[in-house]
Amino acid sequence: MSTEPALMTLTAVAKAIADKKVSSHEVTRAVLHRIAEWQPCLNAYMAVESEQALAAATEADAALAKGNARGPLHGVPLAHKDMYYDAGKVVTCGSLIRRDFVPKTTSTALQRLKDAGQVRLGSLQMVEFAYGPTGHNVHYGAVRNPWHVEHITGGSSSGSGSAVAARLTFAALGSDTGGSVRMPAHFCGVTGLKTTVGRVSRAGAMPLSQSLDTVGPLAQTAEDCALLLGLMAGADPEDLTASTQPVPDYLAATRQSLKGLKIGVPTAFYVDDLDPEVAHILDETVATLKKEGAEIVKVELSDQRQLSAASQLVLAAEAAAFHKRWMIERPQDYGGQVLMRLQNGLTIPAVAYLEAMRWRGPALAAHNAAVSGVDAVIAPSAPVPAPTIAESDVGNGPGAEAVIQRLTRFTRPVNYLGVPSLSIPSGFTKAGLPVGMQLIGRSFEEATLLRIGAAFQRATDFHARVPKLA
Amino acid sequence: MSTEPALMTLTAVAKAIADKKVSSHEVTRAVLHRIAEWQPCLNAYMAVESEQALAAATEADAALAKGNARGPLHGVPLAHKDMYYDAGKVVTCGSLIRRDFVPKTTSTALQRLKDAGQVRLGSLQMVEFAYGPTGHNVHYGAVRNPWHVEHITGGSSSGSGSAVAARLTFAALGSDTGGSVRMPAHFCGVTGLKTTVGRVSRAGAMPLSQSLDTVGPLAQTAEDCALLLGLMAGADPEDLTASTQPVPDYLAATRQSLKGLKIGVPTAFYVDDLDPEVAHILDETVATLKKEGAEIVKVELSDQRQLSAASQLVLAAEAAAFHKRWMIERPQDYGGQVLMRLQNGLTIPAVAYLEAMRWRGPALAAHNAAVSGVDAVIAPSAPVPAPTIAESDVGNGPGAEAVIQRLTRFTRPVNYLGVPSLSIPSGFTKAGLPVGMQLIGRSFEEATLLRIGAAFQRATDFHARVPKLA
Repeated sequence: MSTEPALMTLTAVAKAIADKKVSSHEVTRAVLHRIAEWQPCLNAYMAVESEQALAAATEADAALAKGNARGPLHGVPLAHKDMYYDAGKVVTCGSLIRRDFVPKTTSTALQRLKDAGQVRLGSLQMVEFAYGPTGHNVHYGAVRNPWHVEHITGGSSSGSGSAVAARLTFAALGSDTGGSVRMPAHFCGVTGLKTTVGRVSRAGAMPLSQSLDTVGPLAQTAEDCALLLGLMAGADPEDLTASTQPVPDYLAATRQSLKGLKIGVPTAFYVDDLDPEVAHILDETVATLKKEGAEIVKVELSDQRQLSAASQLVLAAEAAAFHKRWMIERPQDYGGQVLMRLQNGLTIPAVAYLEAMRWRGPALAAHNAAVSGVDAVIAPSAPVPAPTIAESDVGNGPGAEAVIQRLTRFTRPVNYLGVPSLSIPSGFTKAGLPVGMQLIGRSFEEATLLRIGAAFQRATDFHARVPKLA
Repeated sequence: MSTEPALMTLTAVAKAIADKKVSSHEVTRAVLHRIAEWQPCLNAYMAVESEQALAAATEADAALAKGNARGPLHGVPLAHKDMYYDAGKVVTCGSLIRRDFVPKTTSTALQRLKDAGQVRLGSLQMVEFAYGPTGHNVHYGAVRNPWHVEHITGGSSSGSGSAVAARLTFAALGSDTGGSVRMPAHFCGVTGLKTTVGRVSRAGAMPLSQSLDTVGPLAQTAEDCALLLGLMAGADPEDLTASTQPVPDYLAATRQSLKGLKIGVPTAFYVDDLDPEVAHILDETVATLKKEGAEIVKVELSDQRQLSAASQLVLAAEAAAFHKRWMIERPQDYGGQVLMRLQNGLTIPAVAYLEAMRWRGPALAAHNAAVSGVDAVIAPSAPVPAPTIAESDVGNGPGAEAVIQRLTRFTRPVNYLGVPSLSIPSGFTKAGLPVGMQLIGRSFEEATLLRIGAAFQRATDFHARVPKLA
């Protein structure tokens, strides 16, 4: 573990601050220093609030000196995807339309991190309105992959993936509606948790699709994700869709071994048409999990293409409904690809939407039956490592849908089912690009995924590698 | 109160059987006798199961003789709208498509009445798939109004309205999605309760629109409706949309006076373009309620036309989704009007549906604010008394929508809001046709409506009049 403050894990730096081994000010300054170095190259931040962050860090140090620690994140500087409302702060949602929008409320997920003591560093770039898997943004520019700046970060939590990978924040909130946490986690080589629908309140988070939206963290490690999830999860009077299911001790789960766990490897779909390096890394990951004590079995899943089609239909219809007024009043203020996809959503019949929604329960029941013998299913987060920014810059051209489909092939079915999935850094291609594997679990069983992820990370160092500034 | 068994109220006959003043067999025979007389004229029953009913009555009497009363409906013969699944019994849903359908499960609402001891008389006619307000049915013939057989019963619970009015059952389940309990209650001169969405489980009831469907009783009196609602209401593991809200003592509520209650009379919409006789009966009803101790105030409601439009859109889309497969496979087996309306539902965009659904919460909040000063709002159940069967036999012709609109004008907004409404017999036209007024309440406050209805019925006898066989 690094002793250079900016390179520490979230868990480690939080403890170091709490133990007064390092001050919040020192940590914040170190991270701001890295941001200053990397930001011109990566475009990961939407806004950097250096002075306010240092002032808040000073305050945090003073409070701690008086014995007034706010919580487990006391004095830890963090930045999040620019779609989590923070009362009085601009929240752009990666758009022109919301460029100057200042919310009056704070999102519940963010408020809980603030209550735990986080220091705000600024805000992170994202795909316009979180609607796109590549990380391009015609208004604010593409975010760049710190492992290779000509390659995409993945989206829509593009800034979150890039900034966590380059150690420009210890962790970041993302959101995952069709893969938006797992894509950037995979392409940028960080750990990303797509939570169960309803596990974390969505109050004050920009909506894209009310049936599919999930709030989740990106961080260096599964342990870091466990820390954040434990702080954010649980019921919320501001969001009646947030579940009242009890919140387990996720951190405790990360300390358990893999003994007694069964992990399923799909016999089809998630192993088809893989980039050879991704296929190899899948095999290696499975071998490591086996070596660490997990039992590996084959699982036959139901038709994932149907789940994916239903997922896209629900997302497209709900996103179009949220955006309809702006589509009418300000079409020119959208990027071409986002507008095209939103407009496509206008053509979906209510009957098709209702059928897709009605099939969701039976589809989940069938999935649960198929995976009843295992604790998690392992699959690549995407069939390929990060393509280049240039080759995936398809806008609203004829190739757009094909590119989007290929990238989100393995993430969308999970969103339709609503179950959690943890993407963990699992290896690197010969060209030095990260590859992530996702562990797909059962509803509200994030703890199992975090346990597997943490055990894997004790046995490997992919998550701990740090990209170098070119 | 009549001592002729078939003419007693549900509450009275249930007590008379329990007190062994009359046997279930005697009561059942008396009702079957009336059915035999009236059925050729009214077409209110889909199926009359005389022998089974008498056998069940004999069993009920034997059980009672041994001191084994099943519950508050022990030995009371009842029939219901033919859309409540009763395992092993054909349930046609008023359709050709389901003509021979035998469900394997029993609907929760019906099961609770069976558990309370009801004896099955058979099943009641209804509009095909409950989709229509007049009471016509091209497959099984129109149901006729016992007050004037050339006039409609209203729908879709046509058999329920007609049979309760003619005393061919002591009460009957109906269902109300756009007015299907209140229309026949109004046109046939019986009491009908549209319950709050979620108050009564819909498990095993034929679905029409999952967002709007409600189960509710038609009976002679508010007291009878209170008895049935108390038996049926409450949570159900088979229907997670059934509310866990506590079930109050509805019968106790019916014994209270109107002292201290405020009833609102709308300043617009529900008082506009009324048939003069309906307008007069509204005034008389308000005067009676005032005389009985209620305070009458004016209320300004929000725009009910918007609520109505949203209600129709949601119903049309959800009904089309339920019927899509049959529309493709068996279009020729639908009646023309039902098929036309279902096909119209196919054209609704998902975005319009989602907007209508999203507006429901704010619309209810606005309504609740508008009625915050009153305990219930009074309004006619429809702007006109029953038209003739001939004049409203519009099929899928050019006049169909206008007829449907006019009849359901005052019922649909209530379905969109999801609140309860009790239609009570409030007078008769010079031509001898009944007119009903609806008391519109707040969510889950059925008790208040039943209290008002019962007090009104202690002061009037409209509910107690019995039509004569021509």
